Amino acid sequence: MFEAAELGRKISRDEFDAMAPELRTELLALQQQLRQADFPVIVLFAGVDGAGKNETVNLINEWMDPRWIVTRAYGKPSDEERERPEFWRYWRDLPPKGKVGLFLSSWYHRPLVDRVYGKTTLAELDENLEQIVHFEKALADEGALILKFWMHLSEKAQKKRLKGLEKDPMTAWQVTKTDWEHYCLYDKFTSAAERLIMHTSKGHAPWQIVEGADSRYRSAVVLQALKDAITKHLANREAVKKVNAEIKGKAAKGKKAAAPDALVSQPSILSSLDMTQKLEGPDYTKALQEQRARLAHLYHVAKEKGVSTALVFEGWDAAGKGGTIRRLTNALNARDYQVIPIAAPTEEERAQHYLWRFWRHVARAGRVTVFDRSWYGRVLVERVEGFCTEEAWRRAYGEINDFEEQLTQHGIVMCKFWLHITSEEQLARFNSRGQIEYKKWKLTDEDWRNRESWGLYEQAVNDMVERTSTSNAPWTLIEANSKNLARVKVMRTVADALEAALGKAAKIKKK
Amino acid sequence: MFEAAELGRKISRDEFDAMAPELRTELLALQQQLRQADFPVIVLFAGVDGAGKNETVNLINEWMDPRWIVTRAYGKPSDEERERPEFWRYWRDLPPKGKVGLFLSSWYHRPLVDRVYGKTTLAELDENLEQIVHFEKALADEGALILKFWMHLSEKAQKKRLKGLEKDPMTAWQVTKTDWEHYCLYDKFTSAAERLIMHTSKGHAPWQIVEGADSRYRSAVVLQALKDAITKHLANREAVKKVNAEIKGKAAKGKKAAAPDALVSQPSILSSLDMTQKLEGPDYTKALQEQRARLAHLYHVAKEKGVSTALVFEGWDAAGKGGTIRRLTNALNARDYQVIPIAAPTEEERAQHYLWRFWRHVARAGRVTVFDRSWYGRVLVERVEGFCTEEAWRRAYGEINDFEEQLTQHGIVMCKFWLHITSEEQLARFNSRGQIEYKKWKLTDEDWRNRESWGLYEQAVNDMVERTSTSNAPWTLIEANSKNLARVKVMRTVADALEAALGKAAKIKKK
Repeated sequence: MFEAAELGRKISRDEFDAMAPELRTELLALQQQLRQADFPVIVLFAGVDGAGKNETVNLINEWMDPRWIVTRAYGKPSDEERERPEFWRYWRDLPPKGKVGLFLSSWYHRPLVDRVYGKTTLAELDENLEQIVHFEKALADEGALILKFWMHLSEKAQKKRLKGLEKDPMTAWQVTKTDWEHYCLYDKFTSAAERLIMHTSKGHAPWQIVEGADSRYRSAVVLQALKDAITKHLANREAVKKVNAEIKGKAAKGKKAAAPDALVSQPSILSSLDMTQKLEGPDYTKALQEQRARLAHLYHVAKEKGVSTALVFEGWDAAGKGGTIRRLTNALNARDYQVIPIAAPTEEERAQHYLWRFWRHVARAGRVTVFDRSWYGRVLVERVEGFCTEEAWRRAYGEINDFEEQLTQHGIVMCKFWLHITSEEQLARFNSRGQIEYKKWKLTDEDWRNRESWGLYEQAVNDMVERTSTSNAPWTLIEANSKNLARVKVMRTVADALEAALGKAAKIKKK
Repeated sequence: MFEAAELGRKISRDEFDAMAPELRTELLALQQQLRQADFPVIVLFAGVDGAGKNETVNLINEWMDPRWIVTRAYGKPSDEERERPEFWRYWRDLPPKGKVGLFLSSWYHRPLVDRVYGKTTLAELDENLEQIVHFEKALADEGALILKFWMHLSEKAQKKRLKGLEKDPMTAWQVTKTDWEHYCLYDKFTSAAERLIMHTSKGHAPWQIVEGADSRYRSAVVLQALKDAITKHLANREAVKKVNAEIKGKAAKGKKAAAPDALVSQPSILSSLDMTQKLEGPDYTKALQEQRARLAHLYHVAKEKGVSTALVFEGWDAAGKGGTIRRLTNALNARDYQVIPIAAPTEEERAQHYLWRFWRHVARAGRVTVFDRSWYGRVLVERVEGFCTEEAWRRAYGEINDFEEQLTQHGIVMCKFWLHITSEEQLARFNSRGQIEYKKWKLTDEDWRNRESWGLYEQAVNDMVERTSTSNAPWTLIEANSKNLARVKVMRTVADALEAALGKAAKIKKK
């Protein structure tokens, strides 16, 4: 695979100096265009030590305007990072739309090194790579331009390079013991790298292998590739925007007609619920106290063991999410939980992938995070109201499953609730809300509008549950016509999940 | 001081139940008003262990809507927190405008405990408290409502309470060894607490001592106080807004007239600079290389020792900030520095104290952060253009000095540069910018407008340097008519500062 990158290609100083001014001007001009664009540029550098990764990143910062560039390199994770899924730290560092992010020793580093040192099997490496593919795909699908440069050196060239750096007192510090260790593992490294590149070079995030021996040659290749890719992507995104606007225009016109009555009237998962169930009087009080006590005990054990909990609440307007959440959190200590209300994203959130704003709320070890509405907005309100393209909400199922898998694999206990009420019950609650002074604010015109699309929402809920109820992060449907029943069932479900998880807790902690 | 909180005051269940519904409704309604308000509510709980701090915070979360409440409790700082000034973690957790933040074991905890355990002297405690006063004052001055509750128990009552909690298997885990340790230090604790309350109870952030023995009594007192304070503050802020709008209206009308010609024509610090200096040809090349080499070496030592550097660049439009920054960062590895361009604040930043957005960029140990414009915007552009009140920019000098003192006391090396050019030189550069294709974007109408207020800006720069040039964070004025000279002088200044600091570095690390 790397033969083509060992040909000893060079560019003379004259050649380089001849091309440099124009290329540089173009890159600076592109950066200005980019600032207005609706996508980030993510550039990864990986490869053989000494092949010029750092130097190239420095050069880009020198040639372009470093104010619109974010450069990130990763060492050992901090404790705040270790307490969260591995990708949390990459998510938090993603450049917003309009900026360029340069990444060194990034998400490929750990999988590669672990494999080279024999800490993981081939199958585990493949699994790691698969996760990366999903990550990059999700970013690219939302528009990100992803470029990956593999900087290569032949074994001989690497040795020469490391020796050369060591000789010069100005650069000697750059060569570490690890560099020589890696050098000794050159063959293992190359073979793992081949597999890595094969598995993760995709149309949306291709690897480019760059011969790293000659600094002018590799600089010219990378900078030219960067220029070409940004130019092309700017044009592509313009085209995509136009197409999406057209689709949206058409959809808006024919929207209500597009509601497939036949489909809507199909029995959905929701229609199978027995909505007449009740829980009243002393039965309720007893059940509530019982579950409360269980929760108070279990979450405390979970906290001690560093096991976090993520709870997702979705449901019809007026289904009682707020009240249910309050009953649940009453069993917890306020210092240990956080309720995250999900409304319109902020400006900084809008400048990122739609999952970014949920990643930022992933809590440290031993915490409970309650999402009052969640990332499922994409496949519910955004789908029904046409706030995103059909293509976007369709792929969201997979992206969400990936996201939740990362959380649960890290040991986070996850429960997702759909609070269901009947249309009649909702109407009754809307009417009574208008009459209670301190609840009036809860009822908005939007609530009434949403009611009109009940059938579409029901279909969306059905699809959501079908596509995203996994064994690690299952949906629980809650018969919420009875608020009492809903509260007890939610608490019981969370307690059951904690109980089930805490058997595994010791194992989680060791990790 | 605490006698009045040992009177054994109680509220009967009937009394409490009678007042509860109305109080609760009012609090919920206030929360809704608050969501539209232009200030955050910061509520601190401190006091004797077992006096109901946690319970009260839980109750507030139960009664009010937890979605607009942020509850924070602090344990040992994480490594990411330890690598930054002590207050960094409090800044990052501050509630945005419209939300309530409840704080447990917060910024009073460490100073108090350190004093009780004899780790600090009285003078050191006072110094810590002084810093807190400044912090709270800065928040209050920008509109924050700050409430501080000291939950008190007599020695006897504390013993009873801890024993009681221990008896009940449901609450036994709440009592830790530390609690009993604190109990044994009751007298020391009380005496330190008295001093703490005396020094930090201010009009803008008063302490309220609450008798904690009876849960209904303390709940009623805290919730009523919360309600009253929010109600009053909402009204106050409305009044302040009106007054400010009036002042601003008047100022806008008479703005140019308000430019005191006599003052502007006074010789400022800037007029003492020799703007004819130059650095050309081989002299420049040699000097640049020399400083570059020094910097490359010194910053690497600093990185090893975990010493961070913060560089602030301010200057006239077209003074060459960008170019100077690029020459400087060329000496560094891109993975170790970050250039932060300061433009208009984002929505999330606007919802916080004006210094919040700079705190968030305080880097981890061993990094270089370059601010291209900075927190000095408040006393430059915001002052001159009337974007903030006179009162706001006048107090900013002190707030900024506090901020920088915290950074430098943590061991961060700080240099601040004003890049000065003459008005004639600026005009020449503006004209030439318009002619270079990839520099055209740099020249905006605003630049031309700013030129008209040259005199006012000069006065503002003068005041800024006078008020904020401290020994730890001095201003360096750069004669930037000669770009070469500016670049070399900036690099030399940074290198000198690093050299001076690295003598102390070992000491910093031990901490």
